[in-house]
Amino acid sequence: MGVLVVGSVALDSVQTPFGTVREALGGAATFFSVAAAYFTDVDIVAVVGTDFPAEHIEFLRSRGIGTGGLTVEDGETFRWAGVYGYDLNDRDTIDTRLGVFESFRPSIPSSLAESEFVFLANIDPGLQLSVLDQVERPRLVACDTMNFWIERNRPELVELLSRVDIMVMNDAECRMLAEEPNLIKAARIVLGMGPDAVIVKKGEHGALMCTEEGFFSAPAYPCESVFDPTGAGDSFAGGFMGHLAGTGDVSPENIRRAIIYGTVMASFCVEDFSVDGMASLDRIDIDRRFLVLRQVALFEP
Amino acid sequence: MGVLVVGSVALDSVQTPFGTVREALGGAATFFSVAAAYFTDVDIVAVVGTDFPAEHIEFLRSRGIGTGGLTVEDGETFRWAGVYGYDLNDRDTIDTRLGVFESFRPSIPSSLAESEFVFLANIDPGLQLSVLDQVERPRLVACDTMNFWIERNRPELVELLSRVDIMVMNDAECRMLAEEPNLIKAARIVLGMGPDAVIVKKGEHGALMCTEEGFFSAPAYPCESVFDPTGAGDSFAGGFMGHLAGTGDVSPENIRRAIIYGTVMASFCVEDFSVDGMASLDRIDIDRRFLVLRQVALFEP
Repeated sequence: MGVLVVGSVALDSVQTPFGTVREALGGAATFFSVAAAYFTDVDIVAVVGTDFPAEHIEFLRSRGIGTGGLTVEDGETFRWAGVYGYDLNDRDTIDTRLGVFESFRPSIPSSLAESEFVFLANIDPGLQLSVLDQVERPRLVACDTMNFWIERNRPELVELLSRVDIMVMNDAECRMLAEEPNLIKAARIVLGMGPDAVIVKKGEHGALMCTEEGFFSAPAYPCESVFDPTGAGDSFAGGFMGHLAGTGDVSPENIRRAIIYGTVMASFCVEDFSVDGMASLDRIDIDRRFLVLRQVALFEP
Repeated sequence: MGVLVVGSVALDSVQTPFGTVREALGGAATFFSVAAAYFTDVDIVAVVGTDFPAEHIEFLRSRGIGTGGLTVEDGETFRWAGVYGYDLNDRDTIDTRLGVFESFRPSIPSSLAESEFVFLANIDPGLQLSVLDQVERPRLVACDTMNFWIERNRPELVELLSRVDIMVMNDAECRMLAEEPNLIKAARIVLGMGPDAVIVKKGEHGALMCTEEGFFSAPAYPCESVFDPTGAGDSFAGGFMGHLAGTGDVSPENIRRAIIYGTVMASFCVEDFSVDGMASLDRIDIDRRFLVLRQVALFEP
């Protein structure tokens, strides 16, 4: 079936207690698509500048990722630089240069307008809405957002929530959007804004899904070597949407499985800089971690 | 089989965003025993002052909790006062008056020296060790601790860890004791200090068990009405040990079930002040939440 992702492709400079990397391949759409490509066909709609290394485009293509919607514009590629502290839970953004991303207006090629699975990675909710206007009734649309848009463009974010099937966000964003500190209440409040499911990413504490039927709590993969958390949430979304699109099954049981596959992809992502932790996996590596997570979560009455 | 608990019985004054209570029944051994008494016989070894209301002792006895080891000494009962902030995750202790608890030297009545299940609630590790010297090879010993003892009496805490079967602690204490921010690594480090299992309580994020065989991640119960978190960890321990003692089964599968029962008792605890949330349950209420948690955690390959 395949999945369409619209979002950022960037060059990340990251410092963690374990090392430093400069201008490595990054961006939400990148992490998403590298993760999703293990499960299904992926197409990216994004923008980069003329300075974007050709090798990165070749890398994406080598994964089978469609780059027909990745436009190159005059100017600089989006650059982000951040530093993680000792425990990796907090990070400081030390530089953000939007470059050509500042004037990104996603244009969906007609060949992708009938995509059945669509992921709207974190960009201005107004642009996320414009993507929905350009696609024909997808089977399933999921989206992400960030604190910046909750503060700066709540009206369009709320409109977006009424038009997507699944909202994926982190716990701080969920509490902020709902204006409610209790995460269970907060997830229900966001659910009430329209989507069929709210999936809350909690980092080392796993993920929590809220639907009308109740809650699903997915454990985190027990990672001993967390090297760089950058992109974990987008890799989670990639594994999640990739599994749904690859199987074509959006049943409640399969959505739970997809959350576990998302968790697995995030666990590989954090083990190295950039997309390196996900670059050379076999499907069996992925399924092995799925089964570990089943053991981690298992109990019987 | 029954379980013996050694720890504090106190009078708590608590302020949360939802209300205030003054000098209510509290203390680790209290929360533990009220929770455990739904599953098995419980005996408390603790100390209170002459000011301790007789109605509280009657309440404990009415639950079938053995109070033969609850001694009344000249002086004041241990009092604790705390204030919880908006999101209930942080609390400030505003007053601690140890009273007779300051000179508590647990003396195990000979009738309890052959207890098969023993829980050492949070007290000075030196006193926890003295309890172990007074009992005959219990089948299973679990203990708790707190940041204060990790800082002030690490040597005896480390000795204690080599003599207990299961360590129960919260995530911050686990990281502090292991001197390691990664919780997975930290739990393994504490496991290396001697116990067969380390159970890390993570509040709204559930619990994580680390053994030589691997990890078990238990979801939190999806509580929408968290009213007062005081005693949640001790109620967790009570449900956990109560189920193990009540069934007499310490198999790995039953230890996982016990963690879920602990989670259930903590979820009732936080719904009201003091032990009120646990005071009038039926066993069917408890088993209903166990089954909810099974649905919350369930996924199939």
